Amino acid sequence: MLVSELETPAVVVDLDVMERNLSRMADYCRSRNIKLRPHTKSHKIPELAKRQIESGASGITVAKIGEAEVMLNSGITDILIAYPVVGKVKAARLAELAGRGNITVSLDSEEAARAISEEVTARNVKANILVELDVGFGRCGIANENELLTLAQRISDLPGIGFTGLMFYPGQFVVGPKERAALLGNVNELLHRTLETFGRAGLPISTVSGGSTPTACDAHLFHGVNEIRPGMYIFNDRNMAGVGVAGVEDCALSVVVTVVSNSVSGRAIIDGGSKTFSSDRYLAGDGRGFGIIKEDPTAELESLSEEHGHLDIKRSNRRYKVGERLTVIPNHVCSTVNMHNEIYGIRAERVETVWQVAGRGMVR
Amino acid sequence: MLVSELETPAVVVDLDVMERNLSRMADYCRSRNIKLRPHTKSHKIPELAKRQIESGASGITVAKIGEAEVMLNSGITDILIAYPVVGKVKAARLAELAGRGNITVSLDSEEAARAISEEVTARNVKANILVELDVGFGRCGIANENELLTLAQRISDLPGIGFTGLMFYPGQFVVGPKERAALLGNVNELLHRTLETFGRAGLPISTVSGGSTPTACDAHLFHGVNEIRPGMYIFNDRNMAGVGVAGVEDCALSVVVTVVSNSVSGRAIIDGGSKTFSSDRYLAGDGRGFGIIKEDPTAELESLSEEHGHLDIKRSNRRYKVGERLTVIPNHVCSTVNMHNEIYGIRAERVETVWQVAGRGMVR
Repeated sequence: MLVSELETPAVVVDLDVMERNLSRMADYCRSRNIKLRPHTKSHKIPELAKRQIESGASGITVAKIGEAEVMLNSGITDILIAYPVVGKVKAARLAELAGRGNITVSLDSEEAARAISEEVTARNVKANILVELDVGFGRCGIANENELLTLAQRISDLPGIGFTGLMFYPGQFVVGPKERAALLGNVNELLHRTLETFGRAGLPISTVSGGSTPTACDAHLFHGVNEIRPGMYIFNDRNMAGVGVAGVEDCALSVVVTVVSNSVSGRAIIDGGSKTFSSDRYLAGDGRGFGIIKEDPTAELESLSEEHGHLDIKRSNRRYKVGERLTVIPNHVCSTVNMHNEIYGIRAERVETVWQVAGRGMVR
Repeated sequence: MLVSELETPAVVVDLDVMERNLSRMADYCRSRNIKLRPHTKSHKIPELAKRQIESGASGITVAKIGEAEVMLNSGITDILIAYPVVGKVKAARLAELAGRGNITVSLDSEEAARAISEEVTARNVKANILVELDVGFGRCGIANENELLTLAQRISDLPGIGFTGLMFYPGQFVVGPKERAALLGNVNELLHRTLETFGRAGLPISTVSGGSTPTACDAHLFHGVNEIRPGMYIFNDRNMAGVGVAGVEDCALSVVVTVVSNSVSGRAIIDGGSKTFSSDRYLAGDGRGFGIIKEDPTAELESLSEEHGHLDIKRSNRRYKVGERLTVIPNHVCSTVNMHNEIYGIRAERVETVWQVAGRGMVR
């Protein structure tokens, strides 16, 4: 089948670009002796998780127990759930997974750890726990190294639990080399203090898990980090290009759409809106727009209805015809993929494969 | 099963409130002799579409051919696709549906109409077409009544096509009675001119389809309107409450979430983010926040990661505990439901039913 024969809107992935993205990140991690544990939230597709492992990843990361179940059922057994698993039912599901694979979870409360300990002990299995350090993003995690140590000590005493180290998420969206250097400096100061504190207390740490795509290739500059969890790098997107960690030519994923109306002057309407691209905003530059129109950089995808994309074509010399196709690089790949039941792997003009987004909707 | 036993995040619909919303809209339409054709994009659930028909709707509206297929397969046969169906493949799918039900499509181009005519003629079936009038929203539709007449005349000459009238979408998001009156005045002027123009040309119009939840109960004030297509009214949401067309007590849909972290001062983190609520912004007031926390109006759901909701609790006297549950009324129900595989119908504390969101992901 040809790409031109796909019904629109269709999410397509240029396999050549994706494979280059996978190799680059794997090569970087190998060269720095850092474990690569990609966050599969960006695609939720077991086949792609396996491609990541084949290209050098040591295991994968997921956000939810439901995603871990999908991945484990496909045969992937080394999984970090980088999300606090809270409550008895979820802890029991985690314990069930821990009986079938090497499962680690990150968390920041004793309540969460205790429930997991009880459930894994009841099944006579073991789960690993990383405690989460807040490096300034202020979402989850404990920012004080002494409080973090206290939590880690309590957790390491729990039955059925292997305390294996720290995880942090530098989710502050920084643009430009100066801000990135400042972020790095602050995080390193905290990492130094924390690792020293744990060392003095004699609590061994085998894993310091950092990462995110924007900071991935600075990973060797972060003190003590020996594992990273980038997600978006497999595809990249307008945001990654906007903050300068990828070029537009590194964006493997795009959405093929059709012009469905041109009757309003200065506008063309495409058949994808917030239920195709998501409403995620552009995080760089002036923050405007919802994607790059590859065929016409002067066109701006200025706003989205649920199923309509509103192209501002006032600065364009192009004539937009009902029925013609365009290709859009979305702001944010993770939320775009999450809108679709399947995505297509293409090479040049040919559709090579179809993947089901098997982890989609596994919100629990 | 009790609501308190549902794993979170869970989308729940208070059936008493939903039933009241359905009755109110049906009663209004009956009292004004206006046909009710609810837009099912807000739920994408055939069982709920059937409830709408049972409570008085004459048929339903969908946005995409794929959604129409799901609804027709469930036994609903009177369907308006309020979206330009463009291209040969989609036209063929439309023709297939037209052989099984009473299918109408709205559009604004001769190209789209011609493709449909060819496909329905090839199958010896008939489809109805409404031409779309742009009433100032500037998305789809033709704003000039003479150009619209020309298009309608060409369409009514096409084989296999029944030209049945006009459709418009007053999608301008207006807040307050003054702005609503101004919108009504402008739209009415255009409707008057258009209906006169069509009347002089002798082109009969049987349907003038307007509507949207914000304007639904003003429908009798719009000149010539004899059908409306509200969607959100079945559930309502923070936006509808914000613009004053529903009270918070009329919001039938909410999301039950769990606090998964409270380790950052002034914050509590819930287990739902942009992949649970969508990133759709609040369209009223100061535009801030992503939902109403029913248990604590002083808490603000100030930002969303993909799977984390960031509650600002600095103004709250409440102590947030890891593991406790909260209930969130989202900004926008349509995009929230679209994130989930199933939603739960509840009455008081009891789960009465589970619906699969069967039309989810049917973007083509």
